[in-house]
Parts: sequence; structure tokens; C-alpha cells
Amino acid sequence: MVELNFNKLDGLIPVIAQDFETDEVLMIAFMNRDSWELTLKTGYVHYWSRSKNRLWKKGEVSGNFQEAREIRIDCDNDSVLIKVHQIGGAACHTGFRSCFHRIVNGTQLQLDGTRVFNPTDVYGEG
Amino acid sequence: MVELNFNKLDGLIPVIAQDFETDEVLMIAFMNRDSWELTLKTGYVHYWSRSKNRLWKKGEVSGNFQEAREIRIDCDNDSVLIKVHQIGGAACHTGFRSCFHRIVNGTQLQLDGTRVFNPTDVYGEG
Repeated sequence: MVELNFNKLDGLIPVIAQDFETDEVLMIAFMNRDSWELTLKTGYVHYWSRSKNRLWKKGEVSGNFQEAREIRIDCDNDSVLIKVHQIGGAACHTGFRSCFHRIVNGTQLQLDGTRVFNPTDVYGEG
Repeated sequence: MVELNFNKLDGLIPVIAQDFETDEVLMIAFMNRDSWELTLKTGYVHYWSRSKNRLWKKGEVSGNFQEAREIRIDCDNDSVLIKVHQIGGAACHTGFRSCFHRIVNGTQLQLDGTRVFNPTDVYGEG
């Protein structure tokens, strides 16, 4: 198993998910050692949810799993870039393809992207 | 000024630098509020160096500055994606174009990339 440095951020490392086909950056999230090992073992991307404080298989509720197609680590062994096939075509819980669907334009935010799904359909009324 | 949530990570947010022309992910680093504001103000990417515990204008030693061409924020306002023009053609202090120049291949790491510069020429013998 490739060893990473989980010490810099209290057991977590930042992970970038990038679309394997288009190179669009879809999201950033965190992994602990368990999610790293599960990702390598299963081929499906697992994160650590900081809000829920638990292991999080991406897509476990929405069905929008991420298949890991290529995994890269950085020069310091403390962050990861995963090229994924994004099931369902959207990574963001708001229904957009990418979590980064807003561009800074002066003091404003400009929407750039279209909704792939309606969050209420997928997650319920919350 | 667009407001971000710096509370989740002790005053820091993770920032992805992506090549504006090729969409290659070059590096990930962190910003505090000062580096965020300086980046917006100057158009040059500034980070917070966790190892040196100080503001860090990317390229300040190597000359390999990053010009911010497009700045995106994520759905939670707690991370940033910046599309950059990478001066000098390399973001990594090891001389590679991207910090993510190693692919996980089973238990091995496979080099993918070529050196743009020799680190000793740029940073000295250290």
C-alpha cells in the first residue's frame, strides 16, 4: 500500500476529484487513512465527512459514485488527485456537475454550469 | 470582496491551482484570509505556507509566479479553484510541471512527467 503523510492535518489529507474524460475539477474533500485504503481496495472513491464525522462513500445516498480511474499523489505525499468517472454526471450535492460552478467576478459570483439533477429528487426535502 | 468560510480549518482553506490552458492540476496549497485578499487584489496567487508559517507569494524565490486567470469557489464557500498561467512552466519545487507527477500503480509509484527545471539551479544547494 502506498503510504501517505496524514500527520499534517490531524489525520486527514485533501483530495481533488477531476473528471477523467474532460479534466474538469469536480470537487475537493478529505480522506483519512481508512478512506484512502478503501479507495485503493475497492476502486470507488471514499472520503471522510468532516460535517458528519464518519467514513463517506461518495454517492452512497445519490447513487453518484466515483470510479477511480487514475490516482496521483503529490510531491510531499500529503495530498491526492484522483481522476474519476463520475456516475450520474454530477459531483455536487446541489445538482451541478462540479462543486466549483461559481466564478468570482469582482465582488459578485457568476454562475457557470447547468444543473444535472434536482437535489430534492435525490436527497428529499431535507 | 467575496467572503469565504475560513473557520473549518483553523483559518485556512484548500486551494487548487489548475493550468488555464491545459486544465492540468498543478498543485494544492492553503490560503488564509490575507493571501485570499492579496490574490484578488494583485492577480498573483498568494498562499499561506504551513511549513514556514507565513504568507507565501508563489514564485517569490523561483520566479515561477502564478497569474490568476479565473477564480472559482465551491458550493460551501470553503475551497477555491484558481485557473492560472504558470510562469516558467513548472509549479512544483522539484522542477516538475505539476506536483502530481506520480501515479499509484499497485504498491508502486510510476513517474509521469518531465523536469522543466533543475531545483538546484533555482533554489541552490539548500
